[in-house]
Amino acid sequence: MNSLKYTALGAAALVALPGLAFAQEAAAAPTFDEIGPYIMTTLLFCMAGFLVFFMACGFAMLEGGLVRSKNVTMQMTKNIALYSFAAIMYWLIGFNLMYPGDGWIVAGWVGPFFNQTVLDPVGVAAADAALDYASVGSDFFFQLVFVAATASIVSGALAERIKLWPFLIFVIVLTGVMYPISGSWQWGGGWLSEMGFSDFAGSTIVHSVGGWAALAGAIILGPRLGKYKDGRVNPMPGSNLALATLGTFILWLGWFGFNGGSQLAMGTVGDVSDVSRIFANTNMAAAAGSVAALILTQVLYGKVDLTMVLNGALAGLVSITAEPLAPTLFGALWIGAVGGVIVVFAVPFLDKLKIDDVVGAIPVHLFAGIWGTIAVVFYNDGASLGTQLVGIAAYGAFTFVGALIVWVILKAVMGIRVSEEAELQGLDVAEMGMEAYPEFTKG
Amino acid sequence: MNSLKYTALGAAALVALPGLAFAQEAAAAPTFDEIGPYIMTTLLFCMAGFLVFFMACGFAMLEGGLVRSKNVTMQMTKNIALYSFAAIMYWLIGFNLMYPGDGWIVAGWVGPFFNQTVLDPVGVAAADAALDYASVGSDFFFQLVFVAATASIVSGALAERIKLWPFLIFVIVLTGVMYPISGSWQWGGGWLSEMGFSDFAGSTIVHSVGGWAALAGAIILGPRLGKYKDGRVNPMPGSNLALATLGTFILWLGWFGFNGGSQLAMGTVGDVSDVSRIFANTNMAAAAGSVAALILTQVLYGKVDLTMVLNGALAGLVSITAEPLAPTLFGALWIGAVGGVIVVFAVPFLDKLKIDDVVGAIPVHLFAGIWGTIAVVFYNDGASLGTQLVGIAAYGAFTFVGALIVWVILKAVMGIRVSEEAELQGLDVAEMGMEAYPEFTKG
Amino acid sequence: MNSLKYTALGAAALVALPGLAFAQEAAAAPTFDEIGPYIMTTLLFCMAGFLVFFMACGFAMLEGGLVRSKNVTMQMTKNIALYSFAAIMYWLIGFNLMYPGDGWIVAGWVGPFFNQTVLDPVGVAAADAALDYASVGSDFFFQLVFVAATASIVSGALAERIKLWPFLIFVIVLTGVMYPISGSWQWGGGWLSEMGFSDFAGSTIVHSVGGWAALAGAIILGPRLGKYKDGRVNPMPGSNLALATLGTFILWLGWFGFNGGSQLAMGTVGDVSDVSRIFANTNMAAAAGSVAALILTQVLYGKVDLTMVLNGALAGLVSITAEPLAPTLFGALWIGAVGGVIVVFAVPFLDKLKIDDVVGAIPVHLFAGIWGTIAVVFYNDGASLGTQLVGIAAYGAFTFVGALIVWVILKAVMGIRVSEEAELQGLDVAEMGMEAYPEFTKG
Repeated sequence: MNSLKYTALGAAALVALPGLAFAQEAAAAPTFDEIGPYIMTTLLFCMAGFLVFFMACGFAMLEGGLVRSKNVTMQMTKNIALYSFAAIMYWLIGFNLMYPGDGWIVAGWVGPFFNQTVLDPVGVAAADAALDYASVGSDFFFQLVFVAATASIVSGALAERIKLWPFLIFVIVLTGVMYPISGSWQWGGGWLSEMGFSDFAGSTIVHSVGGWAALAGAIILGPRLGKYKDGRVNPMPGSNLALATLGTFILWLGWFGFNGGSQLAMGTVGDVSDVSRIFANTNMAAAAGSVAALILTQVLYGKVDLTMVLNGALAGLVSITAEPLAPTLFGALWIGAVGGVIVVFAVPFLDKLKIDDVVGAIPVHLFAGIWGTIAVVFYNDGASLGTQLVGIAAYGAFTFVGALIVWVILKAVMGIRVSEEAELQGLDVAEMGMEAYPEFTKG
Repeated sequence: MNSLKYTALGAAALVALPGLAFAQEAAAAPTFDEIGPYIMTTLLFCMAGFLVFFMACGFAMLEGGLVRSKNVTMQMTKNIALYSFAAIMYWLIGFNLMYPGDGWIVAGWVGPFFNQTVLDPVGVAAADAALDYASVGSDFFFQLVFVAATASIVSGALAERIKLWPFLIFVIVLTGVMYPISGSWQWGGGWLSEMGFSDFAGSTIVHSVGGWAALAGAIILGPRLGKYKDGRVNPMPGSNLALATLGTFILWLGWFGFNGGSQLAMGTVGDVSDVSRIFANTNMAAAAGSVAALILTQVLYGKVDLTMVLNGALAGLVSITAEPLAPTLFGALWIGAVGGVIVVFAVPFLDKLKIDDVVGAIPVHLFAGIWGTIAVVFYNDGASLGTQLVGIAAYGAFTFVGALIVWVILKAVMGIRVSEEAELQGLDVAEMGMEAYPEFTKG
Repeated sequence: MNSLKYTALGAAALVALPGLAFAQEAAAAPTFDEIGPYIMTTLLFCMAGFLVFFMACGFAMLEGGLVRSKNVTMQMTKNIALYSFAAIMYWLIGFNLMYPGDGWIVAGWVGPFFNQTVLDPVGVAAADAALDYASVGSDFFFQLVFVAATASIVSGALAERIKLWPFLIFVIVLTGVMYPISGSWQWGGGWLSEMGFSDFAGSTIVHSVGGWAALAGAIILGPRLGKYKDGRVNPMPGSNLALATLGTFILWLGWFGFNGGSQLAMGTVGDVSDVSRIFANTNMAAAAGSVAALILTQVLYGKVDLTMVLNGALAGLVSITAEPLAPTLFGALWIGAVGGVIVVFAVPFLDKLKIDDVVGAIPVHLFAGIWGTIAVVFYNDGASLGTQLVGIAAYGAFTFVGALIVWVILKAVMGIRVSEEAELQGLDVAEMGMEAYPEFTKG
């Protein structure tokens, strides 16, 4: 029965896609030794890609849980919209700007602009495929979900007071231009990569870039009304810690794809073992960040602070992202634990500076991202502290200054902050006309 | 250590399954060139299958977020129950009815009834396996999760007023008989497949079928009390937009499996590249649908409407489902964007007709499903508009009329609608005796 | 462009990891026939591992939905913390204690203590890898997520009254010592495996162990205040059934990894087919458990009980876990259905004994776990009822007595239960100083 069903399906497929010469390919089939690595690496990118895609959901849930209920509809809108705009911009400009190949405009600095991504043809023949790597579609998809993560970081820090459209315009610039240009310095084979900078999956290139952009935005935007009053920090507790916990678990899940997929190969014994090694280390760093924040908040405050534990796990993940492969499990443990400690101290530190980061994105992604990039030197002999610092500084200067300029322009041209009334009423009713929980919140 | 552990494990396995002659298979092992494609395609079905399974969760969350809190327990119950009944019915009847192989009762129309699905034997030998396809278990699992998606579509549209048991009986008929029969016309190698109809992953076969069944149900069932009063449409806002957003993200995630798995092969360079091409296109269409709805609601209403953005993303996904492989990324973009536009206009259009679709399932799955099936002709040279329209009409006529008959019978025999009191009180207390959020809702 | 990009990336990778001799490996590459199984099995563990990891999220959501809103922050904290501690303990002690290889201390009973897990070196050469199995990293990660599942079971049963730290100390002992020792009897190649005990993915070894530990804890801890009063059972309804449903779906999803990954191989036709067979059976058992509980609660109480349906699905999953491979689909159906029936009767039975299990963890994981372990004999000719009962009793005696001792010590040394005031006020405010839903709950 099976073969008949298959024949029927095959026939249907042939009708649908006359170009898909399945039989022909089988006839001239290259051996699995030739195509196995390509198949496995393409699969790695697809699998890791859908995991990292899901991080967009994780960020949405985390942020939705940490804002007050009057701003949840807005936060959901920003998160699904930023992912969508990022996807379009990265196709339109970003991917080729970041990976220019031989199309550098200024060698090692800027690639071809408005050179839209083109996928491999349908049913590409082995002879026409990049057999030593993976399909364009899988590579593009995997890189695309990374850029969206960068933008997600910004949305959390600036929540509860920024207008929708200026935020989305910022996302368009960040994902279409800024991230691809700076990303190109390293992952596109640019000057930092030539210098020997090392950032395996993007503690700096993805996370600190998002963190710098968020920091610039938080400074220009100012804190929420009433957050810092009479020298005191007013807590504004998140509306749904179950949702925030869900978001954290989803991000942790997605991180296996984030770091594991960054091995960029799965078709040899060494590569697939490395992918699994990265899984184990990534998990350990997250666990250690979580435990470190748990113990530290118990010691410091006499009570465990769940939001710190969640951010501690995320900081552990960010910390190991620059080098998830080389450390031992013990290395992953202490690197991640330091990330968790950083978060516990950085959150009140930002408050002292009156920089209002609603979800703790800057401690998690910027501070732990810098830490992770430095920590590379402990387990990767090829990395030098000097070069790591150059990379951190270069990404910081470019992104922070660039973001500052964009935020200032947006502020001057269209305004970036909602009115006081809107902020007090909540963005959901004031800006969206739609409550997230119309039946739940107290009179 | 490893080898000893492995030996121990192997020994345990041999004890547990004396038939599993691991050593023997290794001895007479066929080469990876012979078995690689079978392994990869079976893996594709398993992986895509668990992603599509998770769509059942996505539908539950989306619907749970868009109904009022007094009906959430019922909506959750319907969703987990419909998946469960679909799984049993598809094993008992559906799978063999849909893929009858050489067992056609009326050639090309109806397969063998009550011919339960039988899996490959444990540890099947390469010589006994369908080496040019995949294992029965993986194929069955992958097809099974599709049929559940069809049923999920119905539950959203008819929410907040339909009784549990008539709904479940409808699901049993839909998943056990109706969907498999019509699905067989194309995917079982029936007359539509012979005509050259093209529907890669089921814009029509899955989504519009669910939409037609929902439409028939919505007509027979009538709108919720007070929805259309004095010529006005009364908004009945969803109780939890964070949950609805979660559901949308989960559905988006699952769709990579839905469309990617429908390549039905992953063991060649061309096939795995196509899977990745489908991932990229699917993502692009969803992003475009979301952005289109975002911009359009801003322009039309002066405010972005989150529920439209969510449904826009889903409509983009449905639109690309009939042909996620052939289009360029730009093709996916505009096909998906049209889907998003359709939703924004179709939701008020249905309201004008006083057809009450609680979650927007008919615009998303039926209207965008029709659009996607038509759009195949733009990028797939083998598809003709005429044949596409024949297919759309055939599925529409069969499913709509069939569903109408089933709904009318159910209404006559047992009633399908709860009492007015129960509807006003909410199905959770009235029908289930259990609130979903007993501590949250306002007095 | 692609190859240039790839070259650039390759160069970066070589800079980053001078030891990763990609080119060299390619030169001396073994054939895919030699390495394919290793790659596929390592991939299986990574994939199944991230699915089982996600079960930690599923447990958190299920439990968070079934406790009252005043205890949700605490429940979230316990869940993320228990996973994190389990991850660290399993690395520090557990993995080598469970899989001692040739390092048995007492033959077949206890392995090496404090022998921390060491991963394969970066870019391990084929010659140095366990080519007949999988990478250490993948194996460790897969085993690690299992032990966390065991601990998650305990947290649900003891919710709403246990203090955070004694609970976490119990988790440390359970995951670092107790589970690895008893797990070693079977999966480490110990005496039960030599006797012919059969427990494919851990109905007994994982689920009943969690259940026994929970039962011991529930007895020592006592019921929640007011749960059993004047001979009546006071219902204390869960605060968020949407969340509980989400958790159940996530657990169901994760179970494909739990059972499928336990095939421990994916590189042959027989193995990958078996994995898919396990997927189909696992799904069927869950569906049947859900339907059985649905029908039974309708018949018994005249109303379907959603929490029973959710627990029915989970009981179906636990029931099939001891032997997800050998049964036919019909076998999976009735084995799972019996699991669902067990839950419906076991929940009130425990209440009659005044054992207060907040989420129904003991019926689901212990009772259905025992049932599943017995049910092995129906489809696996190599299993004997006597040996199965010996295994069930051995795990029960060891874990129940061991857990009882640990709980009694913890109670004596530091107390395990919060004060009456704290319990009435809710653990979130009293113990954590942080509400999960500060804006939602009624005055």
